[in-house]
Amino acid sequence: MTHAAALPAIPGVRVVAVADPIEDAREAARWASGAARAYADPAEAIHDTEVDAVIVATPTPTHADLVEEAVHAGKAVFCEKPVAEDLARATALWKTVRASGVPFQIGFQRRFDPGYAEARRRIDAGEIGTIDQFRSVGRDPAPPPLSYLKVSGGIFFDQALHEFDLARFLVGEVSEVMVWGATRVAEEIGAMGDADTAVTMLRFQSGALGVIENSRRAVYGYDIRTEVFGSGGKLVVDATPKTPLLRYGEQGVSADHYTFFTDRFRDASHEEMRAFVASVRAGTPPSPGIDDALQAMKIAQAATLSFRRQRAVPVEEAS
Amino acid sequence: MTHAAALPAIPGVRVVAVADPIEDAREAARWASGAARAYADPAEAIHDTEVDAVIVATPTPTHADLVEEAVHAGKAVFCEKPVAEDLARATALWKTVRASGVPFQIGFQRRFDPGYAEARRRIDAGEIGTIDQFRSVGRDPAPPPLSYLKVSGGIFFDQALHEFDLARFLVGEVSEVMVWGATRVAEEIGAMGDADTAVTMLRFQSGALGVIENSRRAVYGYDIRTEVFGSGGKLVVDATPKTPLLRYGEQGVSADHYTFFTDRFRDASHEEMRAFVASVRAGTPPSPGIDDALQAMKIAQAATLSFRRQRAVPVEEAS
Amino acid sequence: MTHAAALPAIPGVRVVAVADPIEDAREAARWASGAARAYADPAEAIHDTEVDAVIVATPTPTHADLVEEAVHAGKAVFCEKPVAEDLARATALWKTVRASGVPFQIGFQRRFDPGYAEARRRIDAGEIGTIDQFRSVGRDPAPPPLSYLKVSGGIFFDQALHEFDLARFLVGEVSEVMVWGATRVAEEIGAMGDADTAVTMLRFQSGALGVIENSRRAVYGYDIRTEVFGSGGKLVVDATPKTPLLRYGEQGVSADHYTFFTDRFRDASHEEMRAFVASVRAGTPPSPGIDDALQAMKIAQAATLSFRRQRAVPVEEAS
Amino acid sequence: MTHAAALPAIPGVRVVAVADPIEDAREAARWASGAARAYADPAEAIHDTEVDAVIVATPTPTHADLVEEAVHAGKAVFCEKPVAEDLARATALWKTVRASGVPFQIGFQRRFDPGYAEARRRIDAGEIGTIDQFRSVGRDPAPPPLSYLKVSGGIFFDQALHEFDLARFLVGEVSEVMVWGATRVAEEIGAMGDADTAVTMLRFQSGALGVIENSRRAVYGYDIRTEVFGSGGKLVVDATPKTPLLRYGEQGVSADHYTFFTDRFRDASHEEMRAFVASVRAGTPPSPGIDDALQAMKIAQAATLSFRRQRAVPVEEAS
Repeated sequence: MTHAAALPAIPGVRVVAVADPIEDAREAARWASGAARAYADPAEAIHDTEVDAVIVATPTPTHADLVEEAVHAGKAVFCEKPVAEDLARATALWKTVRASGVPFQIGFQRRFDPGYAEARRRIDAGEIGTIDQFRSVGRDPAPPPLSYLKVSGGIFFDQALHEFDLARFLVGEVSEVMVWGATRVAEEIGAMGDADTAVTMLRFQSGALGVIENSRRAVYGYDIRTEVFGSGGKLVVDATPKTPLLRYGEQGVSADHYTFFTDRFRDASHEEMRAFVASVRAGTPPSPGIDDALQAMKIAQAATLSFRRQRAVPVEEAS
Repeated sequence: MTHAAALPAIPGVRVVAVADPIEDAREAARWASGAARAYADPAEAIHDTEVDAVIVATPTPTHADLVEEAVHAGKAVFCEKPVAEDLARATALWKTVRASGVPFQIGFQRRFDPGYAEARRRIDAGEIGTIDQFRSVGRDPAPPPLSYLKVSGGIFFDQALHEFDLARFLVGEVSEVMVWGATRVAEEIGAMGDADTAVTMLRFQSGALGVIENSRRAVYGYDIRTEVFGSGGKLVVDATPKTPLLRYGEQGVSADHYTFFTDRFRDASHEEMRAFVASVRAGTPPSPGIDDALQAMKIAQAATLSFRRQRAVPVEEAS
Repeated sequence: MTHAAALPAIPGVRVVAVADPIEDAREAARWASGAARAYADPAEAIHDTEVDAVIVATPTPTHADLVEEAVHAGKAVFCEKPVAEDLARATALWKTVRASGVPFQIGFQRRFDPGYAEARRRIDAGEIGTIDQFRSVGRDPAPPPLSYLKVSGGIFFDQALHEFDLARFLVGEVSEVMVWGATRVAEEIGAMGDADTAVTMLRFQSGALGVIENSRRAVYGYDIRTEVFGSGGKLVVDATPKTPLLRYGEQGVSADHYTFFTDRFRDASHEEMRAFVASVRAGTPPSPGIDDALQAMKIAQAATLSFRRQRAVPVEEAS
Repeated sequence: MTHAAALPAIPGVRVVAVADPIEDAREAARWASGAARAYADPAEAIHDTEVDAVIVATPTPTHADLVEEAVHAGKAVFCEKPVAEDLARATALWKTVRASGVPFQIGFQRRFDPGYAEARRRIDAGEIGTIDQFRSVGRDPAPPPLSYLKVSGGIFFDQALHEFDLARFLVGEVSEVMVWGATRVAEEIGAMGDADTAVTMLRFQSGALGVIENSRRAVYGYDIRTEVFGSGGKLVVDATPKTPLLRYGEQGVSADHYTFFTDRFRDASHEEMRAFVASVRAGTPPSPGIDDALQAMKIAQAATLSFRRQRAVPVEEAS
């Protein structure tokens, strides 16, 4: 729905068709996007002859099939993360996409946030010199439903994947991870063999070191912050407050906080669509692409192994 | 162009036509908006039979005529501020619009900024008690061209009008103003009988007191900040930084700053369009409306008189 | 008591004697300062032969007499602001102090706050170019007792005097003021012919313009903030929060606030003592001195006249 | 010197004697503190019959001997961290101090910083519920001289010890650590078998998880920040800027940063002295005491083992 509503604001873009098996959702998307047609079956939308590019924003287990369908139809495709439900499927898909030459973009939206994008530009410009340390925190306001968690692939594939991508985006390739996980939010999550709270150490190929903190619950909202520290200084991506309003009262000074990715990364979500459209139009490969989609999943796999085996795991062990 | 590009993202809205006497601008607007037709003459766009509502975003001296044209055609109309080039014309237009019953909205975009809108909600909720003091600063990054300044009506009609509207929006009706102006930025501005730097005291009908600071130049960007102080606390609308990124280096900690209304109030600009569309659809009067358009101009007129006569001027003297 | 407790930390300084007519207070000050002697009569302390310098921190109406006593005894003297209970007495004292050549420092402690002191250094270094606008807010947490207010000289001599000194310290001499006052906090204050809420416009000799906001009540604490705006940028002295701790909870992000000058300017209070001692030792004139003490009172007098007569008042009219 | 200069400001405290083998330093300390006597040999100062309490602020390898000397003389003793040059010596000293009943305080000054102290109070009050995660960063502006590093015991005993104490102070006992270290700042440090850059994972006895980042170099100054995250919210101790002054210029908004513990924890340093004096006077055990001194060293020992052996190390393994 976010993409459906935002796409029409991109000059030259028209939403031809939307697809959703649920009629109400389908009609809402059609209304929001001004689409000419609404299908129950996504394959029909993909094969609609007027469609040039496909946005896959469906439950994780359906991603790979839909991307393949689009690729086989020769349609440019954008897919929300993760690209597949597990590493094996992602690796197979990676081969398919690479072989096809079809433009592909993965939905690591944070790369398009003005804060993260500017951090990358300043790093590339050498502003903080050689990077020595990285820190990223990712906390969701509340755990998703257990039904969702069961097919999510676990905290490292579902939640920390964003932090793994940020590590690669801002610092470079990760060579090794070490994870400690815990059950602090909901017993049921632990009972599934998953963690709801985790800390991760990263060793980068460059020799830099990093830490990641994840939690499935933060009562104050959506807690996404990143620091990159180097020989020349430090960059901190920290968006506070959500609303540009400070309140002074008997209890001191206060401000509000972002509640979820829908408000924190709303602009980023629009920007990634614009970037996708611009790449497809220009005939240049979209970024982040299928390599980025796969590489983050390898780190997630290594993290999952580290959590289970209680030892450091090289990323290549997960390949 | 801002509105042309953003309107298509409002569900159910279609840009039927754009108008601009300059061909390149006209075609750019058509491309950005996906409009079916592009006219050189705005009257043709207004009278296009498919058009339900008109957005007037033209040079100030053309506002009143175009609003009248739309009103006579029975089309809902949104007009950028100020609604007319002087108070007399605004007063006449106010009568026309009121008599017509046509939906009208004035472009005081700051009311739709999340910070200002939330400040108003909290004031209405009694969070800061009885309001005692108001402070608003408005500084543009650089003065506009002299050619523009000559037809702008002066700093109080052109720039401070936004602060006058904020005073009314957040505190209530203004009964008296006192202004000191100066020429600090450009001699040519002073030579026109205008000021480029000003401080204004406000007395509200409620007995509250306020101050406004204006300047035509701020090397750090677009400086718009407002404080409302009352018996129960203080609210401060202060958007810093523009990008959610802090940089730590040998010179300390730094962040960027908004550069102009185009970035500071981009969201507000979209929100005012959504509000206009929603009002027209619902058949409820848009807000801020023609009364707000006129009342802010009365304060501007009083401020201009105070600047020239070097004494306090009741707003009703300007009516 | 603040000075009594802090003076012993200045190397080479010894508190010889304290004086207070109330025995308990006298003994508390002796304990805190390690003083050898405690007198009921301040004159005895002043004339104690071991005493080299005198700190006058007594009720305002006693300032001038005690300063004179110290000056006549040839003792260096530091006096809390205001230097006298009215302008006539201050002017007479100014002549006495100037004629004596005795080192004198007035207690405008904010000049020694790291924020204000650094602002002055940066202004002197030309960092913000030519100054165009000044803004200072001064709000106390709660009004003092009426018994105090009756001998305070009114809001401009008692409270705004600090803002007037900041205006001179950071921008330069003030040529004219215009005041609007109101009774918003306590009817009794208005009944005394005083204001508890005020806004003031300043015109500087340089042509710069300024505004000051004062209130006798702020539920969130001690609200002292200053902005200096010029052709090259802006400096903002804004100390938030008091404690370096941010709290994130269901209500958003919050921090505490300074409660009074005793916490906001504690370091400044120590620094002004160190500066006084250093000047006396070095034989250089302390700063701020008797000229600063008098000049701020002239602005306060002009502001009081402006409040009463409802018109702009040149500062020289108050001389 | 910091303590020597600050002690006289504590009511009732007199510096009887200072000791330093270097004459100039000794005389400077005598001047700053107003001490009656200055000794070359610290033992003479300890045994000075007028001395009630001893402050040990000497190079690390001398700490344990001097503490023992004071304890045997029955003098209350404050000692800067670490309490001894290695864990074995610290353990022996712990027994001596415990057996003696002499009041002892260890110099973990951060516990007295208003930010950290208030964080602890809020945690104790249950404000953030059950603690789930901890994060602390400690970066010095530049590495100390190699001569110092050689006797420092390494980064975990010398630098991270403060973070280990904060972990205990704010969360509770640590059961296990895992460290990755690197040489990023100076080859010579790596050549000594030490790290200049490190990340540490902590597992608390409560089940909470934590991360620590350390570096021997930060070009922007002294980077000490801590976060405690729980089921009810998050507390962040983050002191920015050092000076309450914001500068707005063509490059955006900027502020300064703390440069070292001497400015960041100046107040904390005074507060820990006041607390020590108050405890000694009241006859209550000072805090943090010898148990805290030892326990932090056990974590440092476990961290050092983890760094060398590249595996997780239980703290009890270090006992």
